[in-house]
Amino acid sequence: MDQLRPSPANSSPLTPLTFLERAAVVYGDCTSIVYNATTYTWFDTYNRCLRVASAIKSFGIERGHVVSVVAQNIPAMYELQFAVPMAGAILNNINTRLDARTISVLLRHSESKLVFVDYHLQSLVLESISLFPSNVSRPILILINDDHDHLDHDSWSLDFLETYENMVKKGNPDFNWVRPESEWEPMTLNYTSGTTSSPKGVVHSYRSIFIITFDSLINWYVPKQPVYLWTLPMFHSNGWTYTWGMAAVGGTNICLRKFDASIIYNSINRHNVTHMCGAPVILNMLANYPNVKPLKSPVQFLTGGAPPPAAVVLRTESLGFVVSHGYGLTEAAGVVVSCAWKLKWNLFPATERAKLKARQGVRTLGLTEVNVVDPETGVSVKRDGLAMGEVVLRGGCLMLGYLKNPDATSKCLRENGWLYTGDVGVMHPDGYLEIKDRSKDIIITGGENVSSVEVESVLYSNPVVNEAAVVARPDEYWGETPCAFISLKEGMIMKPTQVEIIEFCRERLPHYMVPKTVVFMEELPKTATGKIQKFNLRGIAKDMISFPGATSRM
Amino acid sequence: MDQLRPSPANSSPLTPLTFLERAAVVYGDCTSIVYNATTYTWFDTYNRCLRVASAIKSFGIERGHVVSVVAQNIPAMYELQFAVPMAGAILNNINTRLDARTISVLLRHSESKLVFVDYHLQSLVLESISLFPSNVSRPILILINDDHDHLDHDSWSLDFLETYENMVKKGNPDFNWVRPESEWEPMTLNYTSGTTSSPKGVVHSYRSIFIITFDSLINWYVPKQPVYLWTLPMFHSNGWTYTWGMAAVGGTNICLRKFDASIIYNSINRHNVTHMCGAPVILNMLANYPNVKPLKSPVQFLTGGAPPPAAVVLRTESLGFVVSHGYGLTEAAGVVVSCAWKLKWNLFPATERAKLKARQGVRTLGLTEVNVVDPETGVSVKRDGLAMGEVVLRGGCLMLGYLKNPDATSKCLRENGWLYTGDVGVMHPDGYLEIKDRSKDIIITGGENVSSVEVESVLYSNPVVNEAAVVARPDEYWGETPCAFISLKEGMIMKPTQVEIIEFCRERLPHYMVPKTVVFMEELPKTATGKIQKFNLRGIAKDMISFPGATSRM
Repeated sequence: MDQLRPSPANSSPLTPLTFLERAAVVYGDCTSIVYNATTYTWFDTYNRCLRVASAIKSFGIERGHVVSVVAQNIPAMYELQFAVPMAGAILNNINTRLDARTISVLLRHSESKLVFVDYHLQSLVLESISLFPSNVSRPILILINDDHDHLDHDSWSLDFLETYENMVKKGNPDFNWVRPESEWEPMTLNYTSGTTSSPKGVVHSYRSIFIITFDSLINWYVPKQPVYLWTLPMFHSNGWTYTWGMAAVGGTNICLRKFDASIIYNSINRHNVTHMCGAPVILNMLANYPNVKPLKSPVQFLTGGAPPPAAVVLRTESLGFVVSHGYGLTEAAGVVVSCAWKLKWNLFPATERAKLKARQGVRTLGLTEVNVVDPETGVSVKRDGLAMGEVVLRGGCLMLGYLKNPDATSKCLRENGWLYTGDVGVMHPDGYLEIKDRSKDIIITGGENVSSVEVESVLYSNPVVNEAAVVARPDEYWGETPCAFISLKEGMIMKPTQVEIIEFCRERLPHYMVPKTVVFMEELPKTATGKIQKFNLRGIAKDMISFPGATSRM
Repeated sequence: MDQLRPSPANSSPLTPLTFLERAAVVYGDCTSIVYNATTYTWFDTYNRCLRVASAIKSFGIERGHVVSVVAQNIPAMYELQFAVPMAGAILNNINTRLDARTISVLLRHSESKLVFVDYHLQSLVLESISLFPSNVSRPILILINDDHDHLDHDSWSLDFLETYENMVKKGNPDFNWVRPESEWEPMTLNYTSGTTSSPKGVVHSYRSIFIITFDSLINWYVPKQPVYLWTLPMFHSNGWTYTWGMAAVGGTNICLRKFDASIIYNSINRHNVTHMCGAPVILNMLANYPNVKPLKSPVQFLTGGAPPPAAVVLRTESLGFVVSHGYGLTEAAGVVVSCAWKLKWNLFPATERAKLKARQGVRTLGLTEVNVVDPETGVSVKRDGLAMGEVVLRGGCLMLGYLKNPDATSKCLRENGWLYTGDVGVMHPDGYLEIKDRSKDIIITGGENVSSVEVESVLYSNPVVNEAAVVARPDEYWGETPCAFISLKEGMIMKPTQVEIIEFCRERLPHYMVPKTVVFMEELPKTATGKIQKFNLRGIAKDMISFPGATSRM
């Protein structure tokens, strides 16, 4: 038995890129992408990806180089999820809501060799490049001309070496795409924070992406040839891997640059959408849209993070959405815990059902284990739904680590074989997990994660600020918003207003990270050892009455 | 980037055993198994498997030991698919249609330490043990008392150490089941032939079983909580991995010891069966059952091997079965090529549709590559639907190799990174594969693979036989049956009859391997170099008129 070892035939590295190759055969003449007047088939998509991959390689990009993409949910963005790794490079999607300073930090931290830039975001990226110190070499820039196929050279900045569509034209459709030599090779890089001095860039291997893509298809029970509406940004954990997932099942990707409720409803009706994902804020948007008629046929809606409020679920379900929610994190590449529903729960009263649905649930099949432990001792908490502890994970879809950040990596991926999420939860007697508090440092607003530490470091850079603490304030629409508690230095004659503090942050942070509420205090509450009691502050923020425009009046 | 390597949290070995652990949480109070008057929940099944695993370990079974099971599709058989590897042992299911001699060969070849024996098959296994040479140590024998819970010790042979239900009773439900230390550790052993001197025992790793189980759920689009009828023997590639698959989706396993069309139809109606698998012969059986009424709701039927005849598909589909077929082999652990259907094909005329459906199709998502190549040069054949070559595979679900058979292993798993199936096929211009001839040495009869070489070696052991060649004869009911061509030694005065030849084989082979047709020839057709032209013989066998009882009259 010992003589039987891995051999070349059975140990070919797992990679989700084979899904696209297969889609070109099975679904070659079926629609892969619809975007405004543009329509592609899976044959087209494979062909275009091969061309782009060959063109990327022709720029001298080698295995292990980082290639970044700053783009909305347009066809090129979708294609690059395949084309970049098909060139052997590591795919780095950048959140388009970041400011130029942060993007500049990330591009330098990742040592990105090539950046694909959405036509609509070129000034943002050019500004980020202008912030590079003069001794740092600049990446090659490629302009994604989107559906402006005939954009001529005069109309784009000389900073760009080439346009995306020219790469497609010049590329080689017979390119022999670069397969990973090991499934442990890095495939993607997604930053979860970056304005501070030590960005956290989550690196996933081909193996973990393969496993989570399979897992996410089974967990959401995605059929063959669904019609998928891209309301979840692809830069959020690669659209929680449904980018590659749609190639696996030969789905139709409905791409959208920007959207509101009206555009979403129109798209659903025009394209017979069957599936979509998004932050709870999108559900709110759909629930509150006036005069909407029930959908012609059901649409599966998968949402991440905190479970959406019961009223929103009831309203959207009455319109024809089938809402599921999952718990995931960039470090796990997608949804790894979900509230597997039991048929008998349908018989329970509504309040009981809502309580059950608010629990994050059980691990998906791709994860090996999930547990709630005492963060100090690593011992499991009591499974009584009351004892709180840190949520820890173990499984094949977990990240390789944070890029160039061994401290953060070893704090997260512990030697004891668990990934520590930083999230606080309880385990119910029936084995279902419930998150009680996301990581103390994270505020989730409109689907975006905000690191409170990053916002605090900006506040501390204001010369009048003595102490600063930023916590989540519950918000009916956004889920949460950042709320800053500040004490000022003594002896200040001109005290700043809340508006001035907010303005100060706005100049230094991406818009969505800026506190929407600022509270001045004489002194921030502290523990006996002098640590700020964020728990108290969260209590205060929770009790504030939420009313529109609260921010500006505070 | 180079510093990011596998760590304990992200490299926990892939294993399908975690599916059962999860089912006990998610589907703990849902039905896992129904068998006569016995019903278990997923909590029960997990609990019983833990108890049996702990009891197996208490007999001194260690990681890497082989534990065999000789049983029909009864609850214990299902449980042992989990319990044996949960004890750290390698699971060896034995085909119950084999004869005592073959079983004896396999038990010795595998060095099985423990054998679970179905109550109904005890004399077969005891006979096989009696054939052990005196110097070979005998395995521990456990009697599966099935639903005879109260079978007392007096009523079973002293050769058995214990009964299965006693193991359940005495076992430890808090057993800490043995997780693989590496996902490359062997998990299963399935023999594809064994009467000759070098049995082929296919060994699969935890990794390959995990991948194929995931893959087979996605490929057949199995929903959560299906009702699965066990008409496919679990000893056939572990029921093509739907044993573990049902734990993944929390299905209900309807177990059956023996069945005919009437029992199947009754089970479907009584239990609201949604899914079942089986050889084409089962479809025949269902199609030809008299006075059957259409099903109340559709039943998914997945069949392996050759596509079933169009008439059978039409008839069963009119009754409410939805028939899919897949191509797989024990060496790939399950179905790895299937005829992915395109919606537009529904518009084609029936003959065209039948032609398309007869093609094996495209690789499943879990397989990395499939190709048709010249077996000598390894070069791809022309993709024109005409050029024939050998079907080769590459992917994560392929076997580790054949146990103690390095020659057969290296012939199959080649250094060039491909598994050679021995099957002959063509590649159509659209990338769909069609098998033209199963491996020259294999006859598939009623879902069982028969090695023609094994039958020939028995024929050659008859002193009157000069030459013997066994090929497949097409059969409407069985798919194929073994057909023997024989020339007799010169100067024989008393020539044997066909019946005598068949009787001779019956005494020496499992029943299903015995030729149903015997043809005497003066001399077998040969090539210039003296090799028997099996191709010619297959042509003759194909042209024989198939009529009931043909065998006995020949």
